[in-house]
Amino acid sequence: MQPVSIGLLGLGTVGAEVARLVEDRNGPFATRAGREVVLKKVAVRDRLKSRGLALPIDVLSTDPIAVAADPAVDIVVELMGGIEPARTAVLAALEAGKDVVTANKALLAEHGAELFAAARRSGRAVAFEGAVGGGIPIINTIGVGLAANRFKAMAAILNGTCNFILSSMARSGLSYAEALRQAQRLGYAEADPTLDVDGTDTAHKLAILAQLAFGASVTTSMIPKQGIDTLQSADIQYAAELGYTVKLLAVARDHGDAGLELRVAPRLVRKGSPLAEVSGPDNAIRTVGDPVGSTLISGQGAGAGPTASAVLGDLIDVIVGRAALTARSLALWPEAAPPPRLCSPKDVRGRAYLRFSIADRPGVLGSIAQVLGRHNVSIASVIQHDPGEDDQPDAPVPLVMMTHVASEADLDAALDAIDRLLVVSPPSVRLGVED
Amino acid sequence: MQPVSIGLLGLGTVGAEVARLVEDRNGPFATRAGREVVLKKVAVRDRLKSRGLALPIDVLSTDPIAVAADPAVDIVVELMGGIEPARTAVLAALEAGKDVVTANKALLAEHGAELFAAARRSGRAVAFEGAVGGGIPIINTIGVGLAANRFKAMAAILNGTCNFILSSMARSGLSYAEALRQAQRLGYAEADPTLDVDGTDTAHKLAILAQLAFGASVTTSMIPKQGIDTLQSADIQYAAELGYTVKLLAVARDHGDAGLELRVAPRLVRKGSPLAEVSGPDNAIRTVGDPVGSTLISGQGAGAGPTASAVLGDLIDVIVGRAALTARSLALWPEAAPPPRLCSPKDVRGRAYLRFSIADRPGVLGSIAQVLGRHNVSIASVIQHDPGEDDQPDAPVPLVMMTHVASEADLDAALDAIDRLLVVSPPSVRLGVED
Repeated sequence: MQPVSIGLLGLGTVGAEVARLVEDRNGPFATRAGREVVLKKVAVRDRLKSRGLALPIDVLSTDPIAVAADPAVDIVVELMGGIEPARTAVLAALEAGKDVVTANKALLAEHGAELFAAARRSGRAVAFEGAVGGGIPIINTIGVGLAANRFKAMAAILNGTCNFILSSMARSGLSYAEALRQAQRLGYAEADPTLDVDGTDTAHKLAILAQLAFGASVTTSMIPKQGIDTLQSADIQYAAELGYTVKLLAVARDHGDAGLELRVAPRLVRKGSPLAEVSGPDNAIRTVGDPVGSTLISGQGAGAGPTASAVLGDLIDVIVGRAALTARSLALWPEAAPPPRLCSPKDVRGRAYLRFSIADRPGVLGSIAQVLGRHNVSIASVIQHDPGEDDQPDAPVPLVMMTHVASEADLDAALDAIDRLLVVSPPSVRLGVED
Repeated sequence: MQPVSIGLLGLGTVGAEVARLVEDRNGPFATRAGREVVLKKVAVRDRLKSRGLALPIDVLSTDPIAVAADPAVDIVVELMGGIEPARTAVLAALEAGKDVVTANKALLAEHGAELFAAARRSGRAVAFEGAVGGGIPIINTIGVGLAANRFKAMAAILNGTCNFILSSMARSGLSYAEALRQAQRLGYAEADPTLDVDGTDTAHKLAILAQLAFGASVTTSMIPKQGIDTLQSADIQYAAELGYTVKLLAVARDHGDAGLELRVAPRLVRKGSPLAEVSGPDNAIRTVGDPVGSTLISGQGAGAGPTASAVLGDLIDVIVGRAALTARSLALWPEAAPPPRLCSPKDVRGRAYLRFSIADRPGVLGSIAQVLGRHNVSIASVIQHDPGEDDQPDAPVPLVMMTHVASEADLDAALDAIDRLLVVSPPSVRLGVED
C-alpha cells in the first residue's frame, strides 16, 4: 500500500507535536492508521527556525497555499489558526481533492458554510475535532457516539484561559486583573488575551457545537456574549457565599417552537455539580439529549499534547475512510440552510443573581423589592452585610439577591427600572444561574 | 435505496425502546442513518405479551437463532443478555454474513475472542457501545476519539447499582443491607443483585475496556475482584472523616515492563475529585493517555433510554459503513494474542486505608505501628476515637490508619502479621486509595 502523504500547515507548538507523533512509527497513531504516513510538506513562516525536529529542509515551505495544492500531498492538516491565509489554503486543498483536518475554530465558525460547500463539491471531508475542547473528543461524541439523540441543551466550559482566571479569583480572592497577570505568567493566557476573555473564542466554539448538535446554521454574530473581563471579584465571593461558582459558560438550549437559546456569559453553577468542579485550564461539555439523558465529558481544553491527540484522531479517521462517511451522515453546514430561529428574552426563564449598589438608608430594599415584584420577579434570598467599622455614611453598600425563576424579559425591565431609582448607583450586576 | 432490515433479539425494556425509536421515521436516528430502517423480525420469549408496541404478529418469533440466520435480515441487534442462546445467535448471524450490534457485556467478556474471530472470517463488524457504561459513548471515545493515544491508566465507575448503594450509605449512614433494600425498592437493584454487588458485572466491563485501551486479551477470570457486599458502613464513615468517598472502581494501569494492573475493588477517592462526585446510579470513566492527558466522561450507565442511545448509535455506525472500518482499524481480540502480562503485588504501589479491631489497652497501637514499619509501610494519619460512655472494658475498639505509599506485597505481609497479633481481632479491613 502507498504511504499517505501529509501536508502540514503551521509548525507552532501543536504542529510540532503532531509532526513528532506522525514520525513515531511504533506508536498507537501508526498502528491505528494502518498505513505508513509521511510528512511530505510542512508550511512554516520561517524556514530557518529550529524546532527540535529533524525535518529535511526540502520538506519545509513558506507557502501554505502551494503546500495545500501540491499534488504530492494527500491530506492537508491546517494548524495555522486565524482566517487568512488559512481559509484560502483549506479551499485550495479541497478544490484539489484533498481531505482536510483543521483545529481552526475561528475559520469554521465564520466560514464553515463555504468550506463545507467546497468539501461537498469535491466529495472530501473536513475533520475538526481539535477546533473545540482541545483533547476532549467532543465532536466525535456529539456527532457519532450520541448521533441517535435529539439534543435539548448544552452547557460548556470551552475556554481554558477564562476558567483558569475564574478558578484563581475564586480560590485566592484575586481581582480579575491580578488573576489575568498570574495566568499570563504561567502561560495560560496570551499577551493579548482579548479574544479569550471577552468571550469571542467561546462563541466561536459554541457556533460549531450548536451547528453539530442542533443542525442550526449558527455564526458567532448571532450569539449574545459577555466575557469575564468585567467581572468583579465581589460577585465571585458573594456567589460562593450562596453556594455557587462562577463559570464562563457557552449555553445552547432548544425551546421548541419558541426557538433556540444561545449565549456566552459568566453564570452561576451550584458547587458540587460537575461543571462547578471543573477547575484550572480544563474544559467540559455537558449535553442533555433524548434518549441518553445528561452526559458530561471533560479534560484538557488546550495545549500541544491534547490538541495533537484530537488532530491525530481526525487523521486516523480520514485515513481509514471513516471521516468521509461521517461527513455524509452528518451533513454539516448544509447549503441554503435558514438561520436558526432564536428565542426572545420572554421565552427564556431562569434564576438570577443580582447585586445592587444602594444608598445605606431605610426603605431602599423595600423599593427594590417592589420594582422586582411589579415585574413578576420574586426574591429567593438576600445578602446584606452590616458594613460595620468601614461604614462611611454616604458610601453606597452592596445588596445581593438571588431570584426565583423569572423570564429574561421581566428581569431586563426590572433592572432597567431599578437602575433609574435615585437610591441605586447603576449599573447593577446581573448573572444568570445555570440550573 | 433498499431499506435496511433489522433482526432484533430481545424485547425487554431496552429492546422495546430501541424498537420504538427505530420506528420513529422523523427522529435523529432516521436522519443520521440516511436510509429507511425496518424491524423485520423480533425474537421474544412470549409472542403474546403486550409491549405497548404496534408490531405485526408475523414480525415476532420465539426463535432467536432463526431470526439471526434469516436471509431477510441485514443486521442483528442482540439485546437478550446472558451467554446462551445469545452466543449461538450472534455466531449464526456472523456466519450468515450479517453485522451485529450487541449490548451484552458478559458475552463479550467471556467469548469476545470467538465472536471477533467469526466476524473477521465473514468480514463483518460487531459493535458493542451498549455493553459498557449505558448511554456513555465510552467505546467510541476510547476506540475512535482518543485512537491516537497510548493509554496509561483507567479508573471507572461501571455499575450503577453499586454506585447508588454506596451513595446512599455515604449520605444517609445506611448499612449495606438497608441501602440494598432501598435500591431494590427504587428499581436500581435486581431481586438477585449478586452479579452487580460482588463485582462480576464491573469485571466483565473492565475486561472489555482493557481489551480496547491496552490491546490486551483480558478475560474476567484474570481480574482480582472484591465487591461492595462485604463493605461496612463504619469504613464509609471513617473514609468521609478522612476526606474520601468509597467507590467501586474498575482499575487498569500500565506499569510498563512490570505488566498490567487490573482490579475491581471498593477504593477511596478524594472528595471533590471528579470520580468522587459521581453519585447515584451514574457511571463515569477516567482515562489517562499520552498525549491527551486525563479525560473524564460520565452519564447514565443503565436504563432503557441511555442504552438505546448506545445501541442506535452503533446501528447508525453499521448502516453508514463506519463500523466495518473501525473493526478493521481497532483489530480487537486478535487471534492467538498472548494473555497480558499481569503485574505482581510488589510492583503495585499506593496508599491504603486500614481499620483494625483492637483490644483497648496500652501498647497496641505501638505494636501495630511496629509491624507496619518492619514491612516498610509508614503511617500518614490515625483515627482512634475515645469510645466514651459505650466503653465496655473488653470490647474491641476500632483503630483507623491511612498509610503513605507502600507496595501491595508489603501491605499483604504486614496485614497478615498484624492479624496474627493476640490484641487484634481479625480480619482487619484494607481499602486502596485511588490517587
